[in-house]
Amino acid sequence: MHVLITGAAGFIGSSLTDRLLANGHSVTGVDNLSTGQIEFLAGAQANPNFALRQHDLLDLNALTESVAGADLVVHFAANADVRFGPDHPDRDLQQNIIVTWNVLEAMRRNNVKRIAFSSTGSVYGESAVIPTPEDAPFPIQTSLYGASKISAEGLISAYCESFGMEGFIFRFVSILGERYTHGHVLDFYKSLSINPTRLRVLGNGTQRKSYLYVQDCVDAILTVLDKAKDRVNIYNLGTNEYCRVTDSIGWITGHLGVTPEFDFTGGDRGWIGDNPFIFLETKKVRSLGWEPKLTIQQAVIKTVEYLQANPWVLERR
Amino acid sequence: MHVLITGAAGFIGSSLTDRLLANGHSVTGVDNLSTGQIEFLAGAQANPNFALRQHDLLDLNALTESVAGADLVVHFAANADVRFGPDHPDRDLQQNIIVTWNVLEAMRRNNVKRIAFSSTGSVYGESAVIPTPEDAPFPIQTSLYGASKISAEGLISAYCESFGMEGFIFRFVSILGERYTHGHVLDFYKSLSINPTRLRVLGNGTQRKSYLYVQDCVDAILTVLDKAKDRVNIYNLGTNEYCRVTDSIGWITGHLGVTPEFDFTGGDRGWIGDNPFIFLETKKVRSLGWEPKLTIQQAVIKTVEYLQANPWVLERR
Repeated sequence: MHVLITGAAGFIGSSLTDRLLANGHSVTGVDNLSTGQIEFLAGAQANPNFALRQHDLLDLNALTESVAGADLVVHFAANADVRFGPDHPDRDLQQNIIVTWNVLEAMRRNNVKRIAFSSTGSVYGESAVIPTPEDAPFPIQTSLYGASKISAEGLISAYCESFGMEGFIFRFVSILGERYTHGHVLDFYKSLSINPTRLRVLGNGTQRKSYLYVQDCVDAILTVLDKAKDRVNIYNLGTNEYCRVTDSIGWITGHLGVTPEFDFTGGDRGWIGDNPFIFLETKKVRSLGWEPKLTIQQAVIKTVEYLQANPWVLERR
Repeated sequence: MHVLITGAAGFIGSSLTDRLLANGHSVTGVDNLSTGQIEFLAGAQANPNFALRQHDLLDLNALTESVAGADLVVHFAANADVRFGPDHPDRDLQQNIIVTWNVLEAMRRNNVKRIAFSSTGSVYGESAVIPTPEDAPFPIQTSLYGASKISAEGLISAYCESFGMEGFIFRFVSILGERYTHGHVLDFYKSLSINPTRLRVLGNGTQRKSYLYVQDCVDAILTVLDKAKDRVNIYNLGTNEYCRVTDSIGWITGHLGVTPEFDFTGGDRGWIGDNPFIFLETKKVRSLGWEPKLTIQQAVIKTVEYLQANPWVLERR
């Protein structure tokens, strides 16, 4: 099949691009390279079944041309920055909500009927039900990022219902592994590279979070695309475990062989909108036969190894 | 207090405007008069505590000026058209999502901290739980209108969390009563005025719907604004009953003394995204001491009487 991937030069987008090409599909990638890294597409660009179109997704005309002929649109481009939402509140509106509407409009104009979308566990806000299932009690949004993603989910679902499309919505935990370019593992690794004797930690370190290895994530996406048959298919993606921030720090410092002193900024939240406990119920995706291959600890170590082997990633942000 | 009301010339906006003025508050109304009716503000405009600013809410600069000095923003302006969403999918994006973001930005820039918002029972999609409570299972959106309203709810909640605002979100059933300008009562009344012998009904007439009288709605809003104390306060507003489309038709034809033959278009939905059963759980708002004064039947009759006394309303659309 022919797949159009937005955010194709991103962490997850490029990983999925490579896998689809390896499986014999053709891929058109769209990226404006604002946060995507052209290096991640080096392998893809050597493949004749791949084409990159470099444009902004706010350009609906260019997007409409890009989407033409696709059997599936994978919409992974986003402002993926949860923490700094309040510093520039228009970014989530523009890059997550309006861009998703543009993707849907480009599909409608081209009569393209299948869309996969990267949502987030942040749409559950601070759920009272943990592990949190897909049909948890109707949440109250606590971050601009989560609000923008639930907006996008809603638009996708409404387009599916209104125009006979088929939607695949993935609520991710944080993803780790090769091509990881932002998040706590990079922040800690970078800080320890500069000064291995002290580490500043946002919050009190007790926040409990979930993570998933990027190749397990790609496996799960392909499983759902193959097996889910509803008009709108919503799946949590995560492992069957969570860890504390201090666990993750222990694995990172242990791997690096450093023993810093810690400066905790205090409080049970690292920033406004930080959720002190994220753990998603993943029975639904497991019922399709998928299992993650790596634990959170293994995924954290893989990520540190990747950053050690690719110091250029640290310079980009 | 000083209240800024968007959509002040609309059905519910003008009703709330009149009540707030009667209670001694000052009100600035914003309306672009695209669907609002200037006639609805005749009483308000005779009151020195009222001012109308006529501009589009997509004009963020004008909006920022309008919001200055408000103690409370009531954001009721919207594209309230559920049925024709698929005919112009950009309307819900522009008028419901982007406009809500503009209202929030205008508030943030003016350090205005309280917002009330007209959401809808449509955000529950086709809930499996009926009557549907505020914390029903996380719904899948089935209409562009519902999707745009849940987007707006999410943005409001995230702004409350991010910027220390206080939000009051009302999920309305359909509202009836004086100044009603669109919906099934108007459609049926208009059709029967032209030809009392036949009536075309979308769907098979078995759809079950809920309604609330506009003055009961205003009472409920003021009760919640007075008594609810969370950061984000979400309340269903409706009566403790529902009716079938055929019940409503019976009350209308009985009141008019006509006995048409019916042409049902068939199916359990009148249009794409129509929900065959809407009935909201209203225990939460009742627990604050509010009760509706009118039944659905009384509200339908009030609406027909209003349309009979104000034939100009039928000419406007």
